[in-house]
Amino acid sequence: MILGLLGPEGTFSEKAANKWDLTAELRYFESVSDVVKAVVDEDVDYGVVPIENSLEGSIGMNLDALIEYDVKIAGEVVVPIRHCLLAKGEISEIKAILSHPQALAQCRHSIKNRFGDIEMIEMTSTALAAKRASESKEMAAIASEKSAAKYGLNILLRDLQNQKENYTRFVVIGKIIPEPTSKDKTSIVVYLQKDRPGALYGILGEFASRNINLTKIESRPTKKALGDYLFYIDLEGHVMDEKVQGALKAIEREAGMLRVLGSYPKAE
Amino acid sequence: MILGLLGPEGTFSEKAANKWDLTAELRYFESVSDVVKAVVDEDVDYGVVPIENSLEGSIGMNLDALIEYDVKIAGEVVVPIRHCLLAKGEISEIKAILSHPQALAQCRHSIKNRFGDIEMIEMTSTALAAKRASESKEMAAIASEKSAAKYGLNILLRDLQNQKENYTRFVVIGKIIPEPTSKDKTSIVVYLQKDRPGALYGILGEFASRNINLTKIESRPTKKALGDYLFYIDLEGHVMDEKVQGALKAIEREAGMLRVLGSYPKAE
Repeated sequence: MILGLLGPEGTFSEKAANKWDLTAELRYFESVSDVVKAVVDEDVDYGVVPIENSLEGSIGMNLDALIEYDVKIAGEVVVPIRHCLLAKGEISEIKAILSHPQALAQCRHSIKNRFGDIEMIEMTSTALAAKRASESKEMAAIASEKSAAKYGLNILLRDLQNQKENYTRFVVIGKIIPEPTSKDKTSIVVYLQKDRPGALYGILGEFASRNINLTKIESRPTKKALGDYLFYIDLEGHVMDEKVQGALKAIEREAGMLRVLGSYPKAE
Repeated sequence: MILGLLGPEGTFSEKAANKWDLTAELRYFESVSDVVKAVVDEDVDYGVVPIENSLEGSIGMNLDALIEYDVKIAGEVVVPIRHCLLAKGEISEIKAILSHPQALAQCRHSIKNRFGDIEMIEMTSTALAAKRASESKEMAAIASEKSAAKYGLNILLRDLQNQKENYTRFVVIGKIIPEPTSKDKTSIVVYLQKDRPGALYGILGEFASRNINLTKIESRPTKKALGDYLFYIDLEGHVMDEKVQGALKAIEREAGMLRVLGSYPKAE
């Protein structure tokens, strides 16, 4: 099995991929949208995509990619994220900090407290930041412990994230929805017409009346107008379950658009 | 009246501040949390804070600041955002693009299409990026048209955001909730205990049964655990309105925590 993920080696996506399937062959891409496209084109069997972080919330760009392309969520993995500050030299030599925008955001307060207004440079991944930091003592990277070994860097600080407890939820995307297990979740996206009072309440009622538990609800802009939203909803159960099907059929009649993003075994 | 806002001169916050009150004296701060603190300490009468963008969604960090500090939303302003690429020299000389992380995100696709993997450097504001770009021909800034004039830069590209239509909603924060007009909105934040099926449905029911229209609902992580959320809700009406009070009283009995962030006249 071939798994596509954000590269190069040493990203937190790699940690998620290993947690999902240690035996899979990993193929690295330069961006998450390239991972999604590789799944669509069947260049890989599955892709691993970070979707939500416990400090920063949903990763909007990646949620948007799931709706833009025709892929299905087939699994999920939760990975603890411990950011390290890596560099070739000493703390006193650092003039810029490089990382993925998500990692910079997860560490923004700690960096500000420790380094004041130091230059923060966005990279396409934490591992690429580590690779770049290995070229100059004036650059440090926020990346995984694994990246330190991989790119020959010193670990100057550990647990740089704003709060020690920090988790990222990754989804595994493929082309088909896996068979039901007894512990599944389903992700859907619903578009509700603007200015239709009570529309969201109606939708949630279809779940509540069937005793379907929602584990997440999140609004994302449609990008058309301010105040015009899509709703991403995660619920317990599989799309093949009778009561989930009943709820989705009812919602389809009420909503402007409904798409099932996938059903998959819950992460532990 | 003194208005606090993100500086230096030339930010989109300045545009919002001028739209809200052209006659106010403006006081510039280095970060949005400094603006919020200045309101708390009564160093300024009001503060102007960007809260939501039509392409990128809610600005989580700023939503979080509104709940962390004891301030009240007293107004809102919507400003069209048109990003320009500004530099001292020519496009061919640019080696790095500087801007606020939000502006970089709003322009990420356009930048990638035009410049590939060019270095993107995060600054605390678009205007500060313009100021820095005036120091070297190798740096360009994504900033407002006004910043070009202010910092002596050329406008190399206009409308650099990923989609032409792009709006940011700012809230005006102060210490007290203004008197009702006939066209108000109220913002609240509610904490619902995790794994309480139907809890959100119950909350929305209190609004639906009273015919109160919700204009926004957004989940934010509590930062304690993955899957543990606060809900930010905007609704039509003023906290002094009888039916809004009825709904809030009912919700207070059901929710783990309810806070009214403010009531204020709707932006046009």
